[in-house]
Amino acid sequence: RINGDRLWDTLMDMAKIGPGVAGGNNRQTLTDADAEGRSLFKSWCDKAGMTVGVDKMGTMFATRAGTDPNALPVYVGSHLDTQPTGGKYDGVLGVLAALEVVRTMNDLGIKTKHPIAVTNWANEEGARFAPAMLASGVFAGMHTLDYAYGRKDPEGKTYGDELKRIGWLGDEEVGARKMHAYFEYHIEQGPILEAENKAIGVVTHCQGLWWLEFTLTGKEAHTGSTPMAMRVNAGLAMSRIVEMVQSVAMENQPGAVGGVGQVLFSPNSRNVLPGKVVFTVDIRSPDKAKLDRMRAKIEAEAPVICDALGVGCSVEAIGHFEPVTFDPKLVTSVRNAAEKLGYSHMNIISGAGHDACWAAKVAPATMVMCPCVDGLSHNEAEEISKEWAAAGADVLFHAVVETAEI
Amino acid sequence: RINGDRLWDTLMDMAKIGPGVAGGNNRQTLTDADAEGRSLFKSWCDKAGMTVGVDKMGTMFATRAGTDPNALPVYVGSHLDTQPTGGKYDGVLGVLAALEVVRTMNDLGIKTKHPIAVTNWANEEGARFAPAMLASGVFAGMHTLDYAYGRKDPEGKTYGDELKRIGWLGDEEVGARKMHAYFEYHIEQGPILEAENKAIGVVTHCQGLWWLEFTLTGKEAHTGSTPMAMRVNAGLAMSRIVEMVQSVAMENQPGAVGGVGQVLFSPNSRNVLPGKVVFTVDIRSPDKAKLDRMRAKIEAEAPVICDALGVGCSVEAIGHFEPVTFDPKLVTSVRNAAEKLGYSHMNIISGAGHDACWAAKVAPATMVMCPCVDGLSHNEAEEISKEWAAAGADVLFHAVVETAEI
Ligand SMILES: NC(=O)NCCC(=O)O
Ligand SMILES: NC(=O)NCCC(=O)O
Repeated sequence: RINGDRLWDTLMDMAKIGPGVAGGNNRQTLTDADAEGRSLFKSWCDKAGMTVGVDKMGTMFATRAGTDPNALPVYVGSHLDTQPTGGKYDGVLGVLAALEVVRTMNDLGIKTKHPIAVTNWANEEGARFAPAMLASGVFAGMHTLDYAYGRKDPEGKTYGDELKRIGWLGDEEVGARKMHAYFEYHIEQGPILEAENKAIGVVTHCQGLWWLEFTLTGKEAHTGSTPMAMRVNAGLAMSRIVEMVQSVAMENQPGAVGGVGQVLFSPNSRNVLPGKVVFTVDIRSPDKAKLDRMRAKIEAEAPVICDALGVGCSVEAIGHFEPVTFDPKLVTSVRNAAEKLGYSHMNIISGAGHDACWAAKVAPATMVMCPCVDGLSHNEAEEISKEWAAAGADVLFHAVVETAEI
Repeated sequence: RINGDRLWDTLMDMAKIGPGVAGGNNRQTLTDADAEGRSLFKSWCDKAGMTVGVDKMGTMFATRAGTDPNALPVYVGSHLDTQPTGGKYDGVLGVLAALEVVRTMNDLGIKTKHPIAVTNWANEEGARFAPAMLASGVFAGMHTLDYAYGRKDPEGKTYGDELKRIGWLGDEEVGARKMHAYFEYHIEQGPILEAENKAIGVVTHCQGLWWLEFTLTGKEAHTGSTPMAMRVNAGLAMSRIVEMVQSVAMENQPGAVGGVGQVLFSPNSRNVLPGKVVFTVDIRSPDKAKLDRMRAKIEAEAPVICDALGVGCSVEAIGHFEPVTFDPKLVTSVRNAAEKLGYSHMNIISGAGHDACWAAKVAPATMVMCPCVDGLSHNEAEEISKEWAAAGADVLFHAVVETAEI
């Protein structure tokens, strides 16, 4: 078994960096807080005897040597970046539990044929730079490095410039590393495990996603002196699209979600009808055909809504991944570990996207999940218990050691 | 007649300060650009032989002496501050036409019994600091000075601190000045004069306004892993309220408008359902009973919409003025001036709020309007012709001189 206290203390130490405003964290990608978190993580990896490499996207790989010089490493990781008002566990648990796996192997003197590479993927959240899972996406060949470097935050700063600025631009070619397997441990970020009273989620699939960024063009005009009949109201069109997305998601129950998290009015002044409204629709489903049908319906209905108001409508898909089926052998290894350790478990489909979804394109991959209180995530109030954290780390430890072969 | 070329050149000189991004201006209240605009205006007033006083709200009064030491001044003005993406004429025309009135009086050697006080009211727009017409509101006793000083911009900076910072905190008590009359010349900001092909709007009334700031509280949660049934979606509630406000305005046609110009999602991240949405509903009508009925209906229906989604709903009235009836004698003087000068004219109700609405609380007041292209305002593309600008200034000149008594 891993050391649950040590894992918890390590989580709490990381949570001191980039504190939020309500008990969580704001350690967004490529900020100074991100740099500080990376340095702390590296110091822990150094102390655990690992060698840290960094690639040109800023992803960190801390390797514990294996006994066979020709064996590919087993990668285990997640991400240390957070949402602007994020929790202490989303991503962080997966990276620090991987570190705890190595620390436990050190304690017990376990040697494996395959090296173990603890991984901190850059920009998983996609909050500052869309899309999410950007570095693992480049790693898996889904995006070019140039595309990634050119992604802009809301202030117009690019990923490439900010990576250099914080001093974490590495020299490894992205995707040059080959993986024997990839494991990722994550909080569920949903309500199912807690409701079913299960300690472990054996993650068999991940649902697919589209991020559709709409740009609506209205006519900037005075809210007082512009008669109703003369308005070209992009904000009203946005509201109708939000309602329509809700309907499309509800029509596709069960097995689909849809919503809008980001809305930007221009000029966003109380007495100005917005000339421009930009917002992102997030739709997901584990069923690829359903997901694509939802996208098609939203993209067909939005222009009709806008036309009726005279509002211009353009849409760009700024994020996408297809539903993923994880590697059956690794999934079995996770299930067996939970069984052997006596933890209650169930199969689960990941509702959120994870770096494991891109890793699965280039290697056998799977995930382990633990419950989180009220299914709450992307919220500073995100919470888990020390016992939950430790149980998943135990399962991760056993599945990783089995896959890395003693 | 006033000098239309000189007026136009003066407008274009002011427009160089705080340039916008699309040909208009961004000279928001108490910014460095505002300070620069004030200095330029003061230099013009000095050159025209006026004495400039500044009150504790930062409002500027440039006085041309009268012949009777006991006669109260005739105030003539508007505002030099702009929207974030504002036009070159909204407010500015009224201040600089008042300056042109004095310059013309100087040219013609006209002396009046009552002094003339050219006025630049601070923070008319209310874009940076709500509510609009803040300084004239304090002047008329509608708000306390403390209330005004405590108003915050979106970054949390207060009116009081920013006024000091830009160096335009004056020493006059706000409202200490007594007015013989108040005139304000403004672009219509609506489509009526242009559609009716009239040069002059004789402004008989101004419609009333409520700004209702809603704060909706949802549950910040992951857009992917939070099932539809578990969502407490403040963004969806906001969308339904925007639609409801539209319906309330449409039910009250003619003679009412309603809309939303400002929306702020928190944390405003693509994969986070907003935990908080703050937005301002702007409703207006020249009919007080109708205006209050609209407010009551919106405030009754919004909580029902929110309750159905489990969303918390609070509302604060952050801006208000009642419909105004302007002084009949001054209105007649404006109409007579237009008639005498041979300009086509019609009675009109102001759709926007103006400092004249507050001045009317403490003095006989009225307004003159000129058309603007396509009725467009609060838009950098706001446009008027030199001839339109000059015609209204001519009317202002004659009405002001008549009221100030030669
Ligand atoms: N796990 C997680 O929250 N990832 C961010 C990408 C997503 O929105 O699913
Ligand atoms: N004239 C003008 O645009 N004033 C701002 C206050 C309002 O919204 O009516």
